[in-house]
Amino acid sequence: MGRRTKMSASRYFRVAFPAAPPAMQHFASDNYAGICPEALAALVEANNSGHEPAYGDDSWTERVCDRLRDLFQTDCEAFFVFNGTAANSLALASLCQSYHSVICHDLAHIETDECGGPEFFSGGSKLLTAPGTHGKLTPDAIEAVVTRRADIHYPKPKVVTLTQSTEVGSVYTVEEVRAIAAIAKRRHLKVHMDGARFANAVATLGVHPSEITWRAGVDVLCFGGTKNGLPVGEVVVFFDRALADDFAYRLKQAGQLASKMRFISAPWLGLLDGDVWLRNARHANAMAQLMKMRLEAIPGVSIMFPVESNAVFAQLPAHAAKAMRAKGWKFYEFIGAGGCRLMCAWDTQPETVERFAAEVRDLCAA
Amino acid sequence: MGRRTKMSASRYFRVAFPAAPPAMQHFASDNYAGICPEALAALVEANNSGHEPAYGDDSWTERVCDRLRDLFQTDCEAFFVFNGTAANSLALASLCQSYHSVICHDLAHIETDECGGPEFFSGGSKLLTAPGTHGKLTPDAIEAVVTRRADIHYPKPKVVTLTQSTEVGSVYTVEEVRAIAAIAKRRHLKVHMDGARFANAVATLGVHPSEITWRAGVDVLCFGGTKNGLPVGEVVVFFDRALADDFAYRLKQAGQLASKMRFISAPWLGLLDGDVWLRNARHANAMAQLMKMRLEAIPGVSIMFPVESNAVFAQLPAHAAKAMRAKGWKFYEFIGAGGCRLMCAWDTQPETVERFAAEVRDLCAA
Amino acid sequence: MGRRTKMSASRYFRVAFPAAPPAMQHFASDNYAGICPEALAALVEANNSGHEPAYGDDSWTERVCDRLRDLFQTDCEAFFVFNGTAANSLALASLCQSYHSVICHDLAHIETDECGGPEFFSGGSKLLTAPGTHGKLTPDAIEAVVTRRADIHYPKPKVVTLTQSTEVGSVYTVEEVRAIAAIAKRRHLKVHMDGARFANAVATLGVHPSEITWRAGVDVLCFGGTKNGLPVGEVVVFFDRALADDFAYRLKQAGQLASKMRFISAPWLGLLDGDVWLRNARHANAMAQLMKMRLEAIPGVSIMFPVESNAVFAQLPAHAAKAMRAKGWKFYEFIGAGGCRLMCAWDTQPETVERFAAEVRDLCAA
Amino acid sequence: MGRRTKMSASRYFRVAFPAAPPAMQHFASDNYAGICPEALAALVEANNSGHEPAYGDDSWTERVCDRLRDLFQTDCEAFFVFNGTAANSLALASLCQSYHSVICHDLAHIETDECGGPEFFSGGSKLLTAPGTHGKLTPDAIEAVVTRRADIHYPKPKVVTLTQSTEVGSVYTVEEVRAIAAIAKRRHLKVHMDGARFANAVATLGVHPSEITWRAGVDVLCFGGTKNGLPVGEVVVFFDRALADDFAYRLKQAGQLASKMRFISAPWLGLLDGDVWLRNARHANAMAQLMKMRLEAIPGVSIMFPVESNAVFAQLPAHAAKAMRAKGWKFYEFIGAGGCRLMCAWDTQPETVERFAAEVRDLCAA
Repeated sequence: MGRRTKMSASRYFRVAFPAAPPAMQHFASDNYAGICPEALAALVEANNSGHEPAYGDDSWTERVCDRLRDLFQTDCEAFFVFNGTAANSLALASLCQSYHSVICHDLAHIETDECGGPEFFSGGSKLLTAPGTHGKLTPDAIEAVVTRRADIHYPKPKVVTLTQSTEVGSVYTVEEVRAIAAIAKRRHLKVHMDGARFANAVATLGVHPSEITWRAGVDVLCFGGTKNGLPVGEVVVFFDRALADDFAYRLKQAGQLASKMRFISAPWLGLLDGDVWLRNARHANAMAQLMKMRLEAIPGVSIMFPVESNAVFAQLPAHAAKAMRAKGWKFYEFIGAGGCRLMCAWDTQPETVERFAAEVRDLCAA
Repeated sequence: MGRRTKMSASRYFRVAFPAAPPAMQHFASDNYAGICPEALAALVEANNSGHEPAYGDDSWTERVCDRLRDLFQTDCEAFFVFNGTAANSLALASLCQSYHSVICHDLAHIETDECGGPEFFSGGSKLLTAPGTHGKLTPDAIEAVVTRRADIHYPKPKVVTLTQSTEVGSVYTVEEVRAIAAIAKRRHLKVHMDGARFANAVATLGVHPSEITWRAGVDVLCFGGTKNGLPVGEVVVFFDRALADDFAYRLKQAGQLASKMRFISAPWLGLLDGDVWLRNARHANAMAQLMKMRLEAIPGVSIMFPVESNAVFAQLPAHAAKAMRAKGWKFYEFIGAGGCRLMCAWDTQPETVERFAAEVRDLCAA
Repeated sequence: MGRRTKMSASRYFRVAFPAAPPAMQHFASDNYAGICPEALAALVEANNSGHEPAYGDDSWTERVCDRLRDLFQTDCEAFFVFNGTAANSLALASLCQSYHSVICHDLAHIETDECGGPEFFSGGSKLLTAPGTHGKLTPDAIEAVVTRRADIHYPKPKVVTLTQSTEVGSVYTVEEVRAIAAIAKRRHLKVHMDGARFANAVATLGVHPSEITWRAGVDVLCFGGTKNGLPVGEVVVFFDRALADDFAYRLKQAGQLASKMRFISAPWLGLLDGDVWLRNARHANAMAQLMKMRLEAIPGVSIMFPVESNAVFAQLPAHAAKAMRAKGWKFYEFIGAGGCRLMCAWDTQPETVERFAAEVRDLCAA
Repeated sequence: MGRRTKMSASRYFRVAFPAAPPAMQHFASDNYAGICPEALAALVEANNSGHEPAYGDDSWTERVCDRLRDLFQTDCEAFFVFNGTAANSLALASLCQSYHSVICHDLAHIETDECGGPEFFSGGSKLLTAPGTHGKLTPDAIEAVVTRRADIHYPKPKVVTLTQSTEVGSVYTVEEVRAIAAIAKRRHLKVHMDGARFANAVATLGVHPSEITWRAGVDVLCFGGTKNGLPVGEVVVFFDRALADDFAYRLKQAGQLASKMRFISAPWLGLLDGDVWLRNARHANAMAQLMKMRLEAIPGVSIMFPVESNAVFAQLPAHAAKAMRAKGWKFYEFIGAGGCRLMCAWDTQPETVERFAAEVRDLCAA
């Protein structure tokens, strides 16, 4: 690893990165950020408790599960996994057999960035992609996919998956989720939500987390923690407990059952207590709004998608984008949509945003 | 999780555990222990470095990979994964196709405690078990499995896997590993080592880590960190770099690529610097020796296997085992071998061992 | 194929076969036999009907399905597949998830001769073997496997599978099947029957096919046709139609949906009309009885298992077995039980049996 | 099956078929045709030879394999499988791991009509589709897919697959295959050819079969027999024998090893002897040319793709297509391209073509 993976990932950016960029000279990913203080404190505290039973039978895991049930105001079943690939892939695998299919947006992370993870964990379930403006699926697009084929030579649709917030930084409204869930129910599809940035969506919508999930018809939520300030770990939340039958076996077999589970679960306490998860998300969202405000004021720069979470997608003049990278700024050229993806984290500083915007402004003015 | 998993795991012990056992009233598992101070310090330090590239392109991961190459004195390729199920299953999957088979000991963890993980990740490779005293495979036992069948109606053996130290606490000598690797080479089998407790074996043997791995003919080592003081994480070490081709893709697809990888890799620095990994292992091994010494002196108690790492398997009188559990002590009734498994950790205190042994002595005397 | 596979299979026999044995100089397998006249006639007739819809929408397939429903006196769902590996593996895969397990006899064909097929099609389900005299599972053996473990580190038993008639030529009585199904129901296991030689068992028991299947508690039967006189093809019969949901998709994805399905289904008409399937089985069984009668009269020869179907397992003196093979006779040295397996087919001639027995007698007398 | 599958398949046509159409009142599929006389004769003859070894060790299979080596003028390795789903899926699975990808045309059968078969058999390999006129991939389209991504978050391309003749009835020229193989070699991709209608392509091109396969750079060919007059069965031909290593094990595990293999292989003798396979293909192609000539002369009807094999894709006036179906004619509305697919078989009669065309002409004139 290390050396080899570095090469691969560099190619992902399509441009070479300087060997050692100074810290926070980037809007590349919210995954570049560290652990937020509250999560780290909880992890350390969990260590101070000495020995604890393994595999989730510890007191920390139980507390977090209870806190999640409180948070969602329902008797849901929650499972901790190591990352988003596993969370989404295993949740989907639990909802369909190998000969079924999953309806997702053209730009869905599971389609574009999981290296075939959902296909692997499900034993071959096909992802059927559908278009939609601003990265969002629509009831009509789902209906079109479901009704396109009804023969055994094509995998039978069984799940529809939404990313909330989406890969392009937009957010489904409660009404939009409800409308999609309604068509899903009519077509006997389960509703899965990829919530790698669920916190950012809730912060933007200002609704209770239950409103955008089970009360709107979502069956399973993959609730992301890593991008929101955790070191590692996501939670798979089954609102319909029957769907969680034997899911613990699935996790174990799939290499997603942590032995010292408290170190995966306890940091969630740091996020959940005092609504740090929302505070972190609100901050990241605010930084994105600041970036958007600054950039849209620059002639020659255009904002590509509604800025509703912690990402700004901006079309910079080609020379400006190139010059910014030469100055050491890191950011992705977004695959599939073009332009620059500027991602803010829970600890992105306003000064960094201002500095970035100012440099772009100068370059565009030149 | 939490509540439900608790139930399941309790059943694994075959006896009910008290609801809230006091800390360290157990020899149940080295997984019950926390993070050792050096590993925790490295994790915290990695967080202090601010933002870092994701997916292994960070400076910490590179440093640890280099340290591992130094440790093994060879240009090996190392990959971080979240746990032992994944480490072993993915390493084996990279060595065989679905219609191949893996030769392992009857008591191998991959056979008895991974819920079909190796079969899942390999797409169906069968584990062919072989007997062997003290939990150890022998060249003859391997030869017998390889030559039993040679038709296409039975999966073709492709890998032999050793657990070092073994599931019953014994350790393969350098000569034993070499002899197995020799028969493996002759039969065109790759050699995999499940090193969940590799540190304990190296500490016991007092040899250089390379002597018991690649210099003895091991192709791939799963080097365990969790049981040795890490919060989470193992390393898959390919001594033959050609075998590591595209392994990063395999990890990504299988949900084993950490986005904030430094929090998985950096704690290894804490273990590797100053040979903390060996110090931890030596301590755990010493506690097992103490336990063995105390128990074998008690009439009615017998030691079941050579105590060569951090586990003691003891046959206690039935009433004594029962009474110990009633007093709140936790330990596993070992599945497959009978008797009690007493597992020591990097931080097991001599007082706890003495107290356990004294209580057993009293019960046996009564 | 051809040349290479030949080598492999030869090794399976453990002894070299003469290059070109004369026809019917063997008791190697009922798979060596050809197509029975009635099945061939039906195939030819199906071809005479000109063009027919593909993928099972033809009139022949519908007729055979109806005939099967008549035969079993229940509204079962039947699916045609190409061979026994697929029939059993796909039926089992439809009854369990990858983290579940299947309880089978030590000698079950799915364990010993499918090259990991069940593990492959199920995505990793483990086979848990149990002992039993005469190749038959018992309620106690099943109970022992089910209760051995109940933790998530071991795959959860979900199916019990019986082979009827068994791999050693014995037959489960109606009472035995019922007793096993009763324990299965109590333990929430589905009951699968590998009926590669189902016809031979029915012929021996003299009961209605429903008595030994759904009326006794069997959920799914793999009804073998190939060994009973068909060129290719088995039927998976779901007595509980709910279990057959989406099974047609599973077949399609798994490469088991014949496009010109009438050529797989129509030959079954030849077997089913006029109970040719039972006549064929009775003949093969009778030949086995004749062989048994002749062999058991020879001093030095012993019969190893109850001869209740079309196989005789006999312990011949080593020199006799060797000499018989030198004379060109083919038969398997049975893997796992020792001795010689002598398998009779629907068209085995009494003269061939007499000749074989006479030559053995002469050799033993010498 | 039967009843249930019928429903499913009817929906595939998007229009209801009359319950019992008279024979040959269709251009629905070349799969509707029966067995050609020569193939049936060979099957019957193979049955007359009495008992034969199973699993491919029979004399017929060896003869056919030798005939195939003669046909392709190279020491290729050939394997018989039951159908095209299995042939293509297993061939592809042997060329890539689960985290690799396969480049295919948007309309490739493996993408649109295999119910996720390739994903299932490969354990999750993703199909990456590329556009191309007349159903044909181009070097540029392949290059674009290969260079789109080079990071580990996206499956690594490993194979390019061509359908020859294509799903829309066109044929790759020798030069086109060579050009694609050249880019494939440069990009380290293996070249797979889906030859479900390979015979039709060879008949059209008038080249030696080797010219369009291994001499042009094809590594593996799935040579279709079913649509060309066989009852069941395709051959997977590996021109690079190293790629065929252990493929027999793969077949066995995947339920594609016929026990009475002679009944799958022998009919190929009927096709290969006297070049019946080419005669059959030429006839079907000629019927397509006749259909094309008749239809293109009708005002209001347009031919959608070059007619280079045995299919005609025609845009009929909507009222005419509807009326033809009402008269009992069956044909597919082609999914993905619109229009009507008219497929000719090895035994399609000119009178049927003339009758079909005449009825269309009358309807268009009305």
